[in-house]
Amino acid sequence: MSEAFNPLVASERARKAGQYAVLGAEQPLKLDCGAELGPFTVAYQTYGRLNAAKSNVVLACHALTGDQYVAGTHPVTGKPGWWDLVVGPGRIIDTERYFVICANVLGGCMGTTGPAEVDPATGKPFGLSFPVITVADMVRAQAMLLDHLGIGDVFCVIGGSMGGMQALQWAATFPERTFAAVPIAAAARHSAQNIAFHEVGRQAIIADRDWHGGDYISHGTRPHKGLAVARMAAHITYLSEQALRRKFGRRLQDRSNLSYGFDADFQVESYLRHQGSTFVDRFDANSYLYITRAMDYFDLAADKGGRLAEVFTGVKTRFCLISFTSDWLFPTADSREIVHALNAAAAKVSFVEIVTDKGHDAFLLDEPEFHGTLSGFLNGAARERGLG
Amino acid sequence: MSEAFNPLVASERARKAGQYAVLGAEQPLKLDCGAELGPFTVAYQTYGRLNAAKSNVVLACHALTGDQYVAGTHPVTGKPGWWDLVVGPGRIIDTERYFVICANVLGGCMGTTGPAEVDPATGKPFGLSFPVITVADMVRAQAMLLDHLGIGDVFCVIGGSMGGMQALQWAATFPERTFAAVPIAAAARHSAQNIAFHEVGRQAIIADRDWHGGDYISHGTRPHKGLAVARMAAHITYLSEQALRRKFGRRLQDRSNLSYGFDADFQVESYLRHQGSTFVDRFDANSYLYITRAMDYFDLAADKGGRLAEVFTGVKTRFCLISFTSDWLFPTADSREIVHALNAAAAKVSFVEIVTDKGHDAFLLDEPEFHGTLSGFLNGAARERGLG
Repeated sequence: MSEAFNPLVASERARKAGQYAVLGAEQPLKLDCGAELGPFTVAYQTYGRLNAAKSNVVLACHALTGDQYVAGTHPVTGKPGWWDLVVGPGRIIDTERYFVICANVLGGCMGTTGPAEVDPATGKPFGLSFPVITVADMVRAQAMLLDHLGIGDVFCVIGGSMGGMQALQWAATFPERTFAAVPIAAAARHSAQNIAFHEVGRQAIIADRDWHGGDYISHGTRPHKGLAVARMAAHITYLSEQALRRKFGRRLQDRSNLSYGFDADFQVESYLRHQGSTFVDRFDANSYLYITRAMDYFDLAADKGGRLAEVFTGVKTRFCLISFTSDWLFPTADSREIVHALNAAAAKVSFVEIVTDKGHDAFLLDEPEFHGTLSGFLNGAARERGLG
Repeated sequence: MSEAFNPLVASERARKAGQYAVLGAEQPLKLDCGAELGPFTVAYQTYGRLNAAKSNVVLACHALTGDQYVAGTHPVTGKPGWWDLVVGPGRIIDTERYFVICANVLGGCMGTTGPAEVDPATGKPFGLSFPVITVADMVRAQAMLLDHLGIGDVFCVIGGSMGGMQALQWAATFPERTFAAVPIAAAARHSAQNIAFHEVGRQAIIADRDWHGGDYISHGTRPHKGLAVARMAAHITYLSEQALRRKFGRRLQDRSNLSYGFDADFQVESYLRHQGSTFVDRFDANSYLYITRAMDYFDLAADKGGRLAEVFTGVKTRFCLISFTSDWLFPTADSREIVHALNAAAAKVSFVEIVTDKGHDAFLLDEPEFHGTLSGFLNGAARERGLG
């Protein structure tokens, strides 16, 4: 870790560099856990212009370690936004046509209130006293942001992975406000295997003595080693065996022979170490705990006895589901289950499985067939919406 | 971790409870890394009786975290041996017919010399000054043990996972001494994804401040948190998504509602934590580093320019390869590649893919079709060998 990374400083920079709203001051947000949160801050970015009819809003929802910087250059990392390939002038989500909003999720660490934030009640960082939040809580906070911006319904809610969970949750919680929803590489419930991988990551963070029971900010430390291990484990799951073989195979890193030691002999080791060490420069360890927990808790039909079709009964939202053949974190079967439920609920739904070896991360990458599918669906929905 | 676990004490107990040989005193073992090792100890167990012709030896090779206690009750853990289902009187590897030998691998921590051992040159535990060993080194040490026992060739070398790598290495290094070989759920080279998972485990251990640069024994500490995280990550890879769903799904552990906290709400979390916490009571963290490294380095055809068939040219060993449909750590394609090479080398080879949802660990479990395959192959090979 660079000593420089401080989630509070990063949050402050993100707010100053972009936009934020203080919400819930009068009417706090009721969380699924029973606690109330307010006032709280949501940091967000917008791209393009809201039309007069306020009918051209695209709400882009980010994944576990993403943030509101969906396009352009990220002011903290200096890198392109997570979906810069897709969002921008003349791109698939054309910011000359749509008004794109992307908000850092509740519990995040890029300006939206999360566990690194100072608790106004104590004057100290929340740490583990921050309430456990859910994907539904994230979505309710986004709805409060839209209220604040004077926006009623959204043309399209779109996102991959946890962003796809949010798109599904929008259609379930606010069907009247969701004209179209595009859940990509997502699932209606987090699987046992995915919970297991998240638990490994959490235990890696908690095992780091610099975590200090979650109170590391007060101690002037950061559990960067544990967080790096968590990221390394997770990163493997975002790729595919085929992609790892193609990109790295057993090729050695900067050497012609095995070192017979524990250095990063193999390129794949060096790559993973790099993923771990750069991640800790931009992400807060407690946010990682909270957001993985929110994903683990995600089970859209839990209060319908598992009957997913009932969640979508009468929903008028147009859905487009997309999965990737080599995604083993959110395999096609997970998307297909949602499609079946939507069919049973007589909802409007398209479904495309994209053939690729790039694994779960394919939704962030240059995948022409995927981009063509997105483009086709959005254009059709825009015509139905009367967007020129 | 129980404070009680001390790899030196466990090694000592394992030696006392079983058999061991001090080897390489006159002629040290030349390791692949260039170092020489000797004298060194190999702890082993035998089951059944060697026949007069010395033609009934089955060499069982253990996997990464296994040891020489293949059958019966383990003197340190009190649990059944790792292949007690398969090895014993009247079982598939019938100890009334075969003389079964199983040795703790070089670098291990159950009596065979490994990094926890005291270096005679310094009087202190080796730690990271222990030379990095390879699967070929493990096999050479086993051959030295057989020399010591007066045994020439082996009726069958058999093992799963890293045990399967050893079986392949035996046929490659000592074809004349290997009548039959049964590599189960194995590969001719460790894949990029598997190296990546091992690297995560190693980094989890190294990140633990109690690891002390590998010198934790001198410091009176154990990196039990890091080792537990390594085990948790690895354990997921030994199972399958289907098995995790069937065994645990999203079922809660000892509660009827989510806790909205970071306890083990889900059964799968509780199970994984248990796997981590019990592992540290029986395994040495440095041994974990060394043995995972040996697996990463395994690439049987590396010095043949990757042409695996050349490794087996002229080999008379009878092979039986077995893979499991849901094993994503050593998928069927890995076994099939070996079968193609053996076919190209005109070797005798059978290959069976077992349909199961139990993942990589299926080789340790009650899988009737797998056991039937093993039994059929062994009986046929025994007839060819002239064993009654």
